[in-house]
Amino acid sequence: MNTNDNKIDFDFFFKELDVKVDQVWKEIFSTSGFINAIESGQMTKELYAIYMVETFHYTSHNARNQALVGTRENCNSVYSRFCYEHAAEEVGHEKMALHDVLSIGLKDIEFTIPRPLPETETLIAYLYWISLTGNPLQRLGYSYWAENCYAYINPMIAKVRNTLMLEASQLTFFIAHSDIDADHFNDVKNIIRRTCKTRQDIDSVVYAMDATLRLTGKVLEAVYLEYEKFKSGASLRYAFLAQIDDA
Amino acid sequence: MNTNDNKIDFDFFFKELDVKVDQVWKEIFSTSGFINAIESGQMTKELYAIYMVETFHYTSHNARNQALVGTRENCNSVYSRFCYEHAAEEVGHEKMALHDVLSIGLKDIEFTIPRPLPETETLIAYLYWISLTGNPLQRLGYSYWAENCYAYINPMIAKVRNTLMLEASQLTFFIAHSDIDADHFNDVKNIIRRTCKTRQDIDSVVYAMDATLRLTGKVLEAVYLEYEKFKSGASLRYAFLAQIDDA
Amino acid sequence: MNTNDNKIDFDFFFKELDVKVDQVWKEIFSTSGFINAIESGQMTKELYAIYMVETFHYTSHNARNQALVGTRENCNSVYSRFCYEHAAEEVGHEKMALHDVLSIGLKDIEFTIPRPLPETETLIAYLYWISLTGNPLQRLGYSYWAENCYAYINPMIAKVRNTLMLEASQLTFFIAHSDIDADHFNDVKNIIRRTCKTRQDIDSVVYAMDATLRLTGKVLEAVYLEYEKFKSGASLRYAFLAQIDDA
Amino acid sequence: MNTNDNKIDFDFFFKELDVKVDQVWKEIFSTSGFINAIESGQMTKELYAIYMVETFHYTSHNARNQALVGTRENCNSVYSRFCYEHAAEEVGHEKMALHDVLSIGLKDIEFTIPRPLPETETLIAYLYWISLTGNPLQRLGYSYWAENCYAYINPMIAKVRNTLMLEASQLTFFIAHSDIDADHFNDVKNIIRRTCKTRQDIDSVVYAMDATLRLTGKVLEAVYLEYEKFKSGASLRYAFLAQIDDA
Repeated sequence: MNTNDNKIDFDFFFKELDVKVDQVWKEIFSTSGFINAIESGQMTKELYAIYMVETFHYTSHNARNQALVGTRENCNSVYSRFCYEHAAEEVGHEKMALHDVLSIGLKDIEFTIPRPLPETETLIAYLYWISLTGNPLQRLGYSYWAENCYAYINPMIAKVRNTLMLEASQLTFFIAHSDIDADHFNDVKNIIRRTCKTRQDIDSVVYAMDATLRLTGKVLEAVYLEYEKFKSGASLRYAFLAQIDDA
Repeated sequence: MNTNDNKIDFDFFFKELDVKVDQVWKEIFSTSGFINAIESGQMTKELYAIYMVETFHYTSHNARNQALVGTRENCNSVYSRFCYEHAAEEVGHEKMALHDVLSIGLKDIEFTIPRPLPETETLIAYLYWISLTGNPLQRLGYSYWAENCYAYINPMIAKVRNTLMLEASQLTFFIAHSDIDADHFNDVKNIIRRTCKTRQDIDSVVYAMDATLRLTGKVLEAVYLEYEKFKSGASLRYAFLAQIDDA
Repeated sequence: MNTNDNKIDFDFFFKELDVKVDQVWKEIFSTSGFINAIESGQMTKELYAIYMVETFHYTSHNARNQALVGTRENCNSVYSRFCYEHAAEEVGHEKMALHDVLSIGLKDIEFTIPRPLPETETLIAYLYWISLTGNPLQRLGYSYWAENCYAYINPMIAKVRNTLMLEASQLTFFIAHSDIDADHFNDVKNIIRRTCKTRQDIDSVVYAMDATLRLTGKVLEAVYLEYEKFKSGASLRYAFLAQIDDA
Repeated sequence: MNTNDNKIDFDFFFKELDVKVDQVWKEIFSTSGFINAIESGQMTKELYAIYMVETFHYTSHNARNQALVGTRENCNSVYSRFCYEHAAEEVGHEKMALHDVLSIGLKDIEFTIPRPLPETETLIAYLYWISLTGNPLQRLGYSYWAENCYAYINPMIAKVRNTLMLEASQLTFFIAHSDIDADHFNDVKNIIRRTCKTRQDIDSVVYAMDATLRLTGKVLEAVYLEYEKFKSGASLRYAFLAQIDDA
């Protein structure tokens, strides 16, 4: 990172950060059975359902841990306001994920949403951890990649949509986020410019970006493994998905 | 309270609640040495300063405990969003209280803001308590009276302004709040209409209104007692106020 | 307080603190309708029941907030261990309070334990506040008077026992505490000697002693007022007590 | 699991659980570069130091998250007392880890303990998560394997001790734990017998055992990867270890 007289060169920092984000995404993409299933047109309703249920789980915590950052004692007013405003905009988004997964043939099936996979709980736990402890600014490292993930994710969604022949009305979660997040990504960069003052601030943003994106990669991996266990009968967690009508 | 078929008659409820709020305010006004000092034109810069410092203290927690309500697990989306949005609007208001108190002659005095009086800490502690435990809706009982307190408070502020010959620019805290809170009071009534469904919800709103307004009354009382101890020298907590130039 | 070379003279400090505790107790005793009812032999089962239910409420939080102090980041090992060990010894004591109140004629009455009085909730909230914020050592100010309150309380219990003709088996809460607390009081003094290093530590212990003992006094006052409202029918919170057989 | 009339067959359950613990350990051992380094006699002071610093980090949270379980509202007295007592016994154990790592040649090196590796923070975060949310009994799944890990770990420690020629006085952390934990493991089994009543209780213990042991495996993996980055210069986090005198 380039700093002069303790002034951070944010343009340079964002370029560096984009490179790091790109590296982690490429590692995830290159090793992920889940991504491979999408790209090779082997996505199924069942695999998609497992993914969306796990997405529902962690999404239902995002507004909360975002708001909690703002309540920290060592949080300045500008950043607290950012946290509360973004939390307000993200409330209830998990309902879109739930709507979308129900739309692919789960509406008439009776089931209880299973406990998240350990990898999903771990991501959730870690998002609270970086929100409630350490440098409050570090959660911006999560927002940084999450609000700008659509360059990586949109081609996957297009593939899934095509493979499963989904309507736009069945993709409310991704379409809504992809719209909102363009603005949010600029907000995130602006708030980083306004609040990060020290090398330690910047380092903690990078640390949290790296850690949370990798944990998200582990969730994708775990979704795919759970799908294989569902198919082989080795896990009954998602057994209710066998009732989906694939016709 | 009048309920038909489990439907709450909110117009009736708000009228009842207004009567209760009015009763508690009248009890506070009729027994308060602080209010008496204002009304009899005996307000001094020192008494006002003690009041504003204690106000600064509890105000610095209001956005936080408001946001925390929204993070509760049993909070619906509509109410969570309300909590985060209102928290966003209240961030940093304590700085106005601090600005105002500094303006009356404290700018050139070196001092450390003293620890809040026990009664102020008790109010702060209790606001976190109703925000973090029990029925999440109950904090609306605090908002209900707090966002509508200007009917009671504005005449007092006018008196203080007159006695101490303050400019509008020295009353930013009260003027800003009195503007914002007219809208907020309607928001509070609307969110009560949308979220309170049961007798228990309503009862908890009433309980918290009563408890928090009485605790606020105790803060006023404690401010006045501390002022008397300041004058007699029995307490050194606010000794730095002796340096204010009363000329 | 007498300090030489930043070494605290604890013997002197404890004497000073005892004087302050004594002053607050005397204020409480001299103005309390509750204490007056006991001393004049006018205690009734209903008044005692209200007191014991409110005691049940705050006691059920004491082990918790004691343990929470130990989890604070800025807590040294010696003090954390003290907190956990004392918490372990206080777990479940509220059940004794419940047992005792049931024994005076409530066993065959069907009732739901009412929400604590606002003054009781305020005490509970404030105990969490001093446990979770500020100087972690300050909670020792609460322990200091609470573990040594039997000099003040035992004569009252003897009066109550006599007036209501209670067996020892109906006073398990007070008898158990009065036994345990002799040891605990020494523990509290020892841990203060080992952990308090600065004037700020000492001041925060004194602050919390004063604040929590006064809030406890307010609970006694509120219990008595609630009893009067019970008798006049102005409050229905404890209406179920009318079923106690006073014969 | 075998249940009759809702009575859990704990002997059977513990056998099943031991099999599962054994499977996860075997997976960890068979794929771990760290374990392989130990077994092949290639342990170095630097690798050991990284491991012990990361151990120091998560150990410094164990008493805390153990105590926090006991403060949960839905925790019965027996279990709360267990939590506080075990927390009391584990306070300060991280100091032993620190002592041991300093003893291998770090005493005269000036360094700041680096932020934990993301995998270590993830384990810490997840331990708080299972302590503070969900079924409070689930943390016993962590205690179950952690208090009984010495069957797996002792041979590794013996190897390390031999390779690095360490005195017993340099292994206080492992020796102390291995002594304490034999008793603790029986305590854990007894408290499971006393508190677990339902299939859901048992399932949550199994879930947390599996999740936390796997996360611990990831820490070992991350320690080894960090060591390789230290050697290649790809990471400067532990650069200060280059000053250890390996003579």
